[in-house]
Amino acid sequence: MTRQNNIRVALAGCGTVGRGVCEIVGPRGDALAARTGLRFDVVRALVRDVAKPRQGVDPAIITADIDDLIACKPDVVVEVMGGTTTARQVVLTALQSGIPVVTANKALLAEHGAEVYRTARENGTCVAFEASCAGGLPIVGALLHGLLGNRITRIAGIFNSTCNFVITQMLDAGIEFQAAVKQAQDAGYAEADPTLDVGGGDTAHKLTILASLAFGANVAFDQIPLTGIDRLSLVDLKTAQTLGYRCKLIGIGQRCDDGIMLDVRPTLVRSSHPLGPLSGTSSGVLVDGDVVGPTFYAGAGAGSLPTASAVVADMIDVAGGAAKSTFDTARMFNDQTAEPNYVSPDGVKSPFYVRFNCEPEYVDSVVAALTDAGVAVNSSQYMNAFRAVAIETQPVSLDRVREAARRTAIAGDEPVILHILSDHSDE
Amino acid sequence: MTRQNNIRVALAGCGTVGRGVCEIVGPRGDALAARTGLRFDVVRALVRDVAKPRQGVDPAIITADIDDLIACKPDVVVEVMGGTTTARQVVLTALQSGIPVVTANKALLAEHGAEVYRTARENGTCVAFEASCAGGLPIVGALLHGLLGNRITRIAGIFNSTCNFVITQMLDAGIEFQAAVKQAQDAGYAEADPTLDVGGGDTAHKLTILASLAFGANVAFDQIPLTGIDRLSLVDLKTAQTLGYRCKLIGIGQRCDDGIMLDVRPTLVRSSHPLGPLSGTSSGVLVDGDVVGPTFYAGAGAGSLPTASAVVADMIDVAGGAAKSTFDTARMFNDQTAEPNYVSPDGVKSPFYVRFNCEPEYVDSVVAALTDAGVAVNSSQYMNAFRAVAIETQPVSLDRVREAARRTAIAGDEPVILHILSDHSDE
Repeated sequence: MTRQNNIRVALAGCGTVGRGVCEIVGPRGDALAARTGLRFDVVRALVRDVAKPRQGVDPAIITADIDDLIACKPDVVVEVMGGTTTARQVVLTALQSGIPVVTANKALLAEHGAEVYRTARENGTCVAFEASCAGGLPIVGALLHGLLGNRITRIAGIFNSTCNFVITQMLDAGIEFQAAVKQAQDAGYAEADPTLDVGGGDTAHKLTILASLAFGANVAFDQIPLTGIDRLSLVDLKTAQTLGYRCKLIGIGQRCDDGIMLDVRPTLVRSSHPLGPLSGTSSGVLVDGDVVGPTFYAGAGAGSLPTASAVVADMIDVAGGAAKSTFDTARMFNDQTAEPNYVSPDGVKSPFYVRFNCEPEYVDSVVAALTDAGVAVNSSQYMNAFRAVAIETQPVSLDRVREAARRTAIAGDEPVILHILSDHSDE
Repeated sequence: MTRQNNIRVALAGCGTVGRGVCEIVGPRGDALAARTGLRFDVVRALVRDVAKPRQGVDPAIITADIDDLIACKPDVVVEVMGGTTTARQVVLTALQSGIPVVTANKALLAEHGAEVYRTARENGTCVAFEASCAGGLPIVGALLHGLLGNRITRIAGIFNSTCNFVITQMLDAGIEFQAAVKQAQDAGYAEADPTLDVGGGDTAHKLTILASLAFGANVAFDQIPLTGIDRLSLVDLKTAQTLGYRCKLIGIGQRCDDGIMLDVRPTLVRSSHPLGPLSGTSSGVLVDGDVVGPTFYAGAGAGSLPTASAVVADMIDVAGGAAKSTFDTARMFNDQTAEPNYVSPDGVKSPFYVRFNCEPEYVDSVVAALTDAGVAVNSSQYMNAFRAVAIETQPVSLDRVREAARRTAIAGDEPVILHILSDHSDE
């Protein structure tokens, strides 16, 4: 009694991820059917330019008309086109017709998630979005299933491969940010306008979605403060490495007494920490729960097949019914889910790295001045090559370390302050 | 329209994990209800000794009678008693009454999984078992959902905290295996009879379940070869550390051309590999998929609350309907799922560590002899402290390296051979 259901798929978008989906359900479709008892037939593919030849896609199913995509009465609409205009229209139209949607679109859900979830709910259907965060890494499922017995206290991760590339390139080639971005652009790893990646917006999109799941709240994308990697200097990357750290662009959400702290910021991570060695398209996510403690997930966060892996997983869950059950159960899709109280990161304690440019004989007085200003110093190391002292503090608020550093600094020379990722969320 | 369903729970077993479940649904129940809209009431608790006082458990719900457990018509039976006799009876009886079961029992599923799944299927209900493998780490869910678009090529993990403790203790205290086991027993980390843990049986239980999911097959527990940690010597742990490795008891399943290779064996893992730093009750699992590539999961694999975290996650999925959808979809619960072809680990290629006791002047001839016997040597390092040479080979079969080492060894002195974990499953 092997089930061999045929699932009719309408694909919105036929780019990198769309082709990955076609590869898994097409050439690899027999293996997929053997594993799941399901066959997926792509019956329509919505594209902007119908004239463009697309290898492996039957020209007869290509359309540029959204109505045509829906009119074929698919069992599921798979949105992998990106953007928030046409994609939003496709997703809402499908849901309004009672058709379940699988989407890989982080920007859409980060900026219009509440509208999308409400539309699905009101039309008795569901939306699944494993691929929207960290590509093939099944982190959405972990939050929607395996960790639901927990009150999540912290989620922190590396989500952006362009930033990984640029930071690695700065260190490897010994160059500053602008030159590394140029190299990333030349190598095809960065857009002509790299702002969304290096400025932290892309990381914030993913953090919006994951923090909403983790904290059971409608997190508003525009409430997340953004500090990109564009002001990182090679001196600090090298110094951090000497101290046993790597610098990463981290998206972090943390439960505080009076709300949720959300932030995107360059952060030092211990080299021995599981997030430390991640580079390239690898994403890694740390989730701390009140009963399970710290858990960690890593895998390919981008790329055609890895992202399609998550899309197809959702398609299977939609076909099997698990996606609908999950959507109906999970708190964040409930119409009573409200925005959280946002706690400013500036007041939340963390260990810090502070670098002052000074001659070696001033190190003792710098440490003493910080201590006097209420910042406990964990260690200090003078970096001869840079005529600078690198200080690691004990957990303290950014407000306090900023104020203390300003008072301590030699006139006119702004100290560099970077967060250090805590091992535990309770610091 | 917040759902506030009350779910009646019959608990079989009220030990470490059972008390963790009571803690999450009791004192932490309001938070759980706020997250999920579900309230779990433990209406019966099956124990061996009804007279034993149990803090936090209403004496009125305690029973020693299986029929009584089922007769109260619970919405879910939660089996956290362990063992394969009474537990099997409880689980089968519940399923035969059409009641869904959540179980944390690795031995039961590894040894009687096919019977349990068949009984659930025949009675139109389901069984969920996230807690049976790696405690709070949501690895079962990853295999049943997020990775289903993949043909899994390899799964490898650290699953046993007693072995972690014993190996760490050997290195830290500079003692041999027997002394470290004694210390583990004194500290409460090892049973009076530690065989199931240090002999690899517990790891094989978990590997049986996870490999069945990963490869869509009914893996038979007794088909997994077991090499425990009991013959590890301190010399090799120290040498491995010098070479940049940690030694771990690894359970591994790998897809080969003509079947599935399964093995439990002490294995050297690079210190920089995500599995390298894991110790104590931490479990870590590496899953390689054909489309997603390598993915990694780590978290608390044992302990009262971490394990209960996974049990409660399954209880939520049962209550919300996702568990039933998943059980009905997943290939391994299908009655046509067969045993795989078992490929002997001895013929599967892997890099190896080989240690020969010899004087330094013999190193060149040892390397030459191995090379002549068809084993390509990656590196060799003479360890003065141990009067031994440690050799890392390129991927080769165990059969071949064993034969070559035997021919190479100085008469009467058996060389030590240990697997090195490959970075990729295609070696």
